[in-house]
Amino acid sequence: MNPSDPIPADPLKRPVVRLRPKAEARALRHGYPWVYADELVLDRRTSALPPGALAVLEDAERRPLGLVTVNPASKIVARMLDRDPGAEVNEAWFVARLSRALSLRDRLYAAPFYRLAHAEADGLPGVVIDRFGEVAVVQPNAAWAEAHLDALVAALVRVTGVSAVIKNGSGRARGLEGLPEETAVVHGAAPAGPLPVPMNGATYMADLTGGQKTGLFFDQRENHAFAARLAKGGRVLDVFTHVGGFALAALAGGAEHALAVDASAPALALAGAGAKASGFADRFATRQGDAFAVLEDLGREGALFDLVICDPPAFAPAKPALEAGLRAYERIARLAAPLVAPGGSLVLCSCSHAADLSAFRNASARGIGRGGRRGQLIYTGFAGPDHPVLPQLAESGYLKALAFRLDG
Amino acid sequence: MNPSDPIPADPLKRPVVRLRPKAEARALRHGYPWVYADELVLDRRTSALPPGALAVLEDAERRPLGLVTVNPASKIVARMLDRDPGAEVNEAWFVARLSRALSLRDRLYAAPFYRLAHAEADGLPGVVIDRFGEVAVVQPNAAWAEAHLDALVAALVRVTGVSAVIKNGSGRARGLEGLPEETAVVHGAAPAGPLPVPMNGATYMADLTGGQKTGLFFDQRENHAFAARLAKGGRVLDVFTHVGGFALAALAGGAEHALAVDASAPALALAGAGAKASGFADRFATRQGDAFAVLEDLGREGALFDLVICDPPAFAPAKPALEAGLRAYERIARLAAPLVAPGGSLVLCSCSHAADLSAFRNASARGIGRGGRRGQLIYTGFAGPDHPVLPQLAESGYLKALAFRLDG
Repeated sequence: MNPSDPIPADPLKRPVVRLRPKAEARALRHGYPWVYADELVLDRRTSALPPGALAVLEDAERRPLGLVTVNPASKIVARMLDRDPGAEVNEAWFVARLSRALSLRDRLYAAPFYRLAHAEADGLPGVVIDRFGEVAVVQPNAAWAEAHLDALVAALVRVTGVSAVIKNGSGRARGLEGLPEETAVVHGAAPAGPLPVPMNGATYMADLTGGQKTGLFFDQRENHAFAARLAKGGRVLDVFTHVGGFALAALAGGAEHALAVDASAPALALAGAGAKASGFADRFATRQGDAFAVLEDLGREGALFDLVICDPPAFAPAKPALEAGLRAYERIARLAAPLVAPGGSLVLCSCSHAADLSAFRNASARGIGRGGRRGQLIYTGFAGPDHPVLPQLAESGYLKALAFRLDG
Repeated sequence: MNPSDPIPADPLKRPVVRLRPKAEARALRHGYPWVYADELVLDRRTSALPPGALAVLEDAERRPLGLVTVNPASKIVARMLDRDPGAEVNEAWFVARLSRALSLRDRLYAAPFYRLAHAEADGLPGVVIDRFGEVAVVQPNAAWAEAHLDALVAALVRVTGVSAVIKNGSGRARGLEGLPEETAVVHGAAPAGPLPVPMNGATYMADLTGGQKTGLFFDQRENHAFAARLAKGGRVLDVFTHVGGFALAALAGGAEHALAVDASAPALALAGAGAKASGFADRFATRQGDAFAVLEDLGREGALFDLVICDPPAFAPAKPALEAGLRAYERIARLAAPLVAPGGSLVLCSCSHAADLSAFRNASARGIGRGGRRGQLIYTGFAGPDHPVLPQLAESGYLKALAFRLDG
């Protein structure tokens, strides 16, 4: 327990927060994890709770629903932590949650490289933990987790046996929780340089402490694997490659050559290092620049690829950006489609929460049409199984990957 | 060409059908494949066309849009066959379509066992072709295809080199097209018995001519593969197993034991033969009976499995059946959830057109809750890439598979 923790450790002294008379408690009883501000009695006492305070949530009839963490300033004013209102959030509590999360990943993956905890769905609201072998990176993007970080880290070390834990405090969500941006080694020693990460037969290089946001995302692993099947024997263009995401998987899948495009020089350097570590250096090339400009240049050059992948950052992270975001996805598809050889494939991805599957698919199909091509949709993929979601929140699944096979 | 073919072979003599003045031709120009009855001028001449007639489709301004097949009795009155209104539908035309379809499957699969042609998305409206090595099974579920069956079969043999072609005329759609139910060997000799089909490391047995509808569906292959990852080292229950679908894949993935349930004795016999051919006979058992009854019995027996899969027939094939269908899916989930060991997984499938992903997911989650469990959603899968869809028709993708990991 953090010594500066303002939260009463004794469950008996916990504050109580209460649903409004008309608020629906049924969804919460069935596993819905959030309470919105308009569902809670926000009296002076509740409004004065510090962000991240633990409290007992009761329904309007004063029946306890569970233990929640409260943030009076947030639209989601309370998040369910435990159905047991008397639960103590300590190292043992984290050990139980993390052991459960680990057993799923242990079953799914041959090597310990995965997202170990994916927030709400793993019973840890706002907490994301990625594991890179002996190193774990924790994003405590919620005040309650920041307050209990010592117990969380101790449990993480106990459950996984990792030798180092890095706290990555750069998440967008931290601002909303009143938390500062800070990244620090909170256990053991940081790796001396980029870390090799085996995935889909390739070796990726992840820089976990370089501060350039050049870590590594595990969420595309299954989609990488599918694209690799389409890449066999062909020439591949991977736009927004980051540290070589689709390109290295495609080369491991037997692609003849891959050209990886990104605006970030440090990311491309890591992609190159990954290609070298994988033994693909002679089949791998990079091109630094703005993706839209590079796509236009390649179009003018008349370049053709058997497989083109575009995995851009979120163009529509939230609703106000939806329309502009969908236009950007359409433009990507329009510029990329002409670069696909007859009978080749185009993989388009979106990690935008606001653009749902149907909207993203329509924007992509429109762009392909405006690019003068037609296609069959052969694959729809989401984030991998180490990124579980609560069924009640599944509609908002952020990552979508579509594979189109274009006309001959 | 079939000698009884009532369709003029000479493109110049083709009838012309025309869109109504307000009908939107843009979608058709961009690849939408269907014309609805209220979009077409249904004059006496058009209404008199025999089902499956080829015709030139024009927009209201008499500009040709392409070659269509017409069925005046159907809600979908015309289907686009070719953007070239003068195209001849002959063996060479089928060779071009099938070669394009084959090149995608060749790239994706190591062995020639797949759906070779998936109707509209492969440019062959209403035509489904499954390939089992040296044997192909054609479902010409549209009158135009029945009329051109000789050319289609000749092209199929030329493109794939298969030694036998079976025409399966049992499709529900054939009635609507005025076609009789009939199954026949239309090229070569039918296989003497069940055919071994390698998939996901197991060997399935498919009876292509037994008339018991005990063939084999390729559409679940990717979902079988994912479930197999969850099965490793565990005890598996596969309800509605058909010829061993999920069960054999799970055993190939390292399951300790699989119990396969189906109402059909011939299907279970083939599942058993598959288990034997795969070398899994000692880890495989079957139970014949109504799935709901068996689930209830297993519940009473207190049986527990590390992985339970339910892959029922379509409970909601069309809109009128939607509500009852969703109740059936919920019931399946409610009965299956208690059979999952703590921390184990539940895979629920729907092949209902009418139940979309969100409706099916909600019914499943509700059922799991009513079964006294909670779960994380770790996987959402669809039909495999040998079942492509046109992006314009993607909303109606029929097959959904959800994997939930249940609480401990």
